[in-house]
Amino acid sequence: MDERLKKQMEFALEMDKEKGIGRQTYILNALRKENDAEHGWHLGLMTILLAEYANEKIDVSRTVEMVTIHDVVEIDAGDTYAYDDAGNATKAEREQKAANRIFGILPEEQGKYFMDLWLEFEAASTPEAKFATAIDSVQPVMLNNASNGLAWREHGVAASKVQERALKKIKPGSEKLYEMVMDIIAENVKKGNLKDC
Amino acid sequence: MDERLKKQMEFALEMDKEKGIGRQTYILNALRKENDAEHGWHLGLMTILLAEYANEKIDVSRTVEMVTIHDVVEIDAGDTYAYDDAGNATKAEREQKAANRIFGILPEEQGKYFMDLWLEFEAASTPEAKFATAIDSVQPVMLNNASNGLAWREHGVAASKVQERALKKIKPGSEKLYEMVMDIIAENVKKGNLKDC
Repeated sequence: MDERLKKQMEFALEMDKEKGIGRQTYILNALRKENDAEHGWHLGLMTILLAEYANEKIDVSRTVEMVTIHDVVEIDAGDTYAYDDAGNATKAEREQKAANRIFGILPEEQGKYFMDLWLEFEAASTPEAKFATAIDSVQPVMLNNASNGLAWREHGVAASKVQERALKKIKPGSEKLYEMVMDIIAENVKKGNLKDC
Repeated sequence: MDERLKKQMEFALEMDKEKGIGRQTYILNALRKENDAEHGWHLGLMTILLAEYANEKIDVSRTVEMVTIHDVVEIDAGDTYAYDDAGNATKAEREQKAANRIFGILPEEQGKYFMDLWLEFEAASTPEAKFATAIDSVQPVMLNNASNGLAWREHGVAASKVQERALKKIKPGSEKLYEMVMDIIAENVKKGNLKDC
């Protein structure tokens, strides 16, 4: 095998580890929690499905690529729960170090391509990154709602925290999905799944 | 929520079930078997990563969409192991019925879009479908090799079966990846992971 393909296959195999990175969101009617690979797949599919609701015109293909790779740094840095303030304080540094190692496995120009996609996602300023960020936040709300708020209840999450996150993460990418999420939050406050504060 | 978005979100939630459809391939150093959502994510990533090895020029975006949705019919039809001859005899009929129900959840034109993508994958005749089919067969070979042939040994798979499958599924999409896989098969015969027949 030539050197280029060898590096690419090493990276492809390294990616297998994403299947072992656990998230806090329950799936399959609350049977178990989701992992990063499943999450990435679900986001890719929802990006294709819901692209029409992006506030600005987006390149769907680049957005799908972005959601596909957005969590691979967690192979080294682990998943940081959205409402874990301490973990989020050190997240950027841990993830940058991980990105350097993981994308560094690849042939240089391809590593740079993925690194740039990841940095674009993190900066959340292009239309594609804004929509990717929105989908990344809509999906766990959808699943939390489907499991009757199980992860929210376990962590005692306040509605205001989810609203604040939706305002920051979903609204810039999609007004339409933001409205939908605000309705879901309100329903879950009524059901007692989110704390009314 | 309007009717269109409601159908799309129903479909998005239905997709969660892909995470519960088991495959025969071991992942994470043989810790457990893979599910369809993880597999779909890995294929999307490998399609982006290895697109340069397609025999013909491909639209990478459409190929990624194809691998993302190619297994969703298994929510109803279940996974059929590549070397299960009896299961494969009824596979097409079971999967078509599943596709009708699952893509039927969506707004009509979007359901048709996904159905057409899935049928294109199944027919394996366009450059995109040929490459998607190749990646779908390269990934389990890579993982089987990484787990020292665990699934192959459990099922007593003959090297000739894997070679025959590679010839049919990988070579039309990528000569380069086909050669790589033939080398991997030869190594696994030497190690006793595949039966030398």
